[in-house]
Amino acid sequence: MSSSEPSSVCGEADIIAMLAPLAEGVPGAFGLMDDCALITPEAGSELVLKTDPVAEGVHFLPDDAPEDIAWKALAVNVSDLAAKAARPIGYLMALAFPEAPSTAWVGRFAAGLAQAQQRFGCALIGGDTDRRPGPLTISITILGAVARGRMVRRGTARPGDKVFVSGTLGDAALGLALRKTPALAGAWGLSAVEADHLRHRYTRPDPRLALSSALLACAAAAMDISDGLAKDAARMCSASACGGRVHIPAIPLSAACARALDAQPSLISQVVTGGDDYEILAAVPAGQASAFRTAAAAAEVPVTEIGSFLEGRGLVLDGADGRPLSLAKSGFDHFA
Amino acid sequence: MSSSEPSSVCGEADIIAMLAPLAEGVPGAFGLMDDCALITPEAGSELVLKTDPVAEGVHFLPDDAPEDIAWKALAVNVSDLAAKAARPIGYLMALAFPEAPSTAWVGRFAAGLAQAQQRFGCALIGGDTDRRPGPLTISITILGAVARGRMVRRGTARPGDKVFVSGTLGDAALGLALRKTPALAGAWGLSAVEADHLRHRYTRPDPRLALSSALLACAAAAMDISDGLAKDAARMCSASACGGRVHIPAIPLSAACARALDAQPSLISQVVTGGDDYEILAAVPAGQASAFRTAAAAAEVPVTEIGSFLEGRGLVLDGADGRPLSLAKSGFDHFA
Repeated sequence: MSSSEPSSVCGEADIIAMLAPLAEGVPGAFGLMDDCALITPEAGSELVLKTDPVAEGVHFLPDDAPEDIAWKALAVNVSDLAAKAARPIGYLMALAFPEAPSTAWVGRFAAGLAQAQQRFGCALIGGDTDRRPGPLTISITILGAVARGRMVRRGTARPGDKVFVSGTLGDAALGLALRKTPALAGAWGLSAVEADHLRHRYTRPDPRLALSSALLACAAAAMDISDGLAKDAARMCSASACGGRVHIPAIPLSAACARALDAQPSLISQVVTGGDDYEILAAVPAGQASAFRTAAAAAEVPVTEIGSFLEGRGLVLDGADGRPLSLAKSGFDHFA
Repeated sequence: MSSSEPSSVCGEADIIAMLAPLAEGVPGAFGLMDDCALITPEAGSELVLKTDPVAEGVHFLPDDAPEDIAWKALAVNVSDLAAKAARPIGYLMALAFPEAPSTAWVGRFAAGLAQAQQRFGCALIGGDTDRRPGPLTISITILGAVARGRMVRRGTARPGDKVFVSGTLGDAALGLALRKTPALAGAWGLSAVEADHLRHRYTRPDPRLALSSALLACAAAAMDISDGLAKDAARMCSASACGGRVHIPAIPLSAACARALDAQPSLISQVVTGGDDYEILAAVPAGQASAFRTAAAAAEVPVTEIGSFLEGRGLVLDGADGRPLSLAKSGFDHFA
């Protein structure tokens, strides 16, 4: 258990000691040596909270690099804050290991977190470490700040608002498919660079924090796309008590994804239902669409209008022929 | 998946719908229908945060009642806030099920949470539900409030401070032993009421929120006792860079625990190293000891002085003969 032992296996105290640098310089983290973390809210701010655990075999693959696992565990939580136009402050992290991890593994995991923290502008403020059977699980709860009354909500889209998405969709779903079946790269006619791009989008999501001011200025509602566009857009419709229509040919695709779709057009269902996009879905009033585009361009975040919110209920996805796409499933569901 | 199906098995949407009443009346929970929860801090307050997941087979038993599992999952987190003199506000809860749960199970689990929320004065504000292999896991992150600068810390005990504990220790450890080996009740000469008391202390910990004003007024440092007195008191010594001495015969015991110890004196090592006490360990300056006793009595929380913090390092536990107790292990350790 003690870090003075020459063993390469980490005990609880060793793990805490190796993670402590991630909490350095944050007064309320108490060097991870107190029971609780302390946050002093800025005057005029509200706090935005989210917990989104990731588990091996469900949210990442057993052979993922420890640095990548760490990055993704934090990124999926930061992505929710980004959609709310909140600024990340800090996070609590509960780790569950089926076996005591090696010092080398914890070191690489901590290095990935350090990299992600620096990118996202937040720090570890507390946590917990357990050993229990089951997959390696990283349960992060993230805390962000937003000016009072300014959090961008999910349930406030209105009929007539335009459906916008950031970046490109479907990359991570195809990247995961490539991870599982490398031969698909050939079948899809992908270059090595293109295949790498798709895999990287699965492994290293980069939350759209830069879109924050555009969302604050122009969006009626927003959420991140984590369970696939079809499911998440339907959720926004449902929460907003309105309907929606998305024009599938308008969905922004990376060059790699477009090439795969050329080779296998049926992949479109993976593009709209696959998880792990970590892009932002926004409802933007028609009169704000131009300003939103301008603000997003200033932030260097590509955004694309792909449809409209409507009176009524339910989401329709129109294909190139104008007919609704029929999907076997609407998106990732843990219980389906 | 839909709640309109006649199935008795819950999907993600069903689970959220059954938990939504736990978030009722809390504006920042958005009926569990947004990506994030929103907290508006009171002016002059700071926020105290903790995450302490519980897993079947590690923190509770497979045959525990769903109401008890829910209660304990929340109570172990509230206990940390109690030790910091923080008032619970709300919590995020990530559930991981190996199989889709039954409607009946989720209903009873929600009922236990409702009971615990009412007792502890907080509400569900957000969460996440996954299916993954491994034990049923409930990962709660709790949020409390404390007046600015008033959080009671772990690392601020000073040589000369008195070691106080609330309630009685060891009950839960013996209760767990009884759950695993019911015949021990006979061997220990326990009445049915006494055996029930010990089991109840394992299953339904009741965090010492009532001690808050006494801690605020008199304590130099505090933490909750969750991994056993020996280990947790040593942690307070370590965090405070001081030593400590605890007089074992001074440790407060319930009548049931005392009877078991009479029958089997070696159980004392379980009393001081067993987990799940969820009592409070406090460092109280000698000059405040009397005021602390008075304030605790006014709050109807029993407190007992069991030793002192000292110059130096390390914790010594003295037996009735004045000789240090030798322990095979100092307390619960997930990796030992």
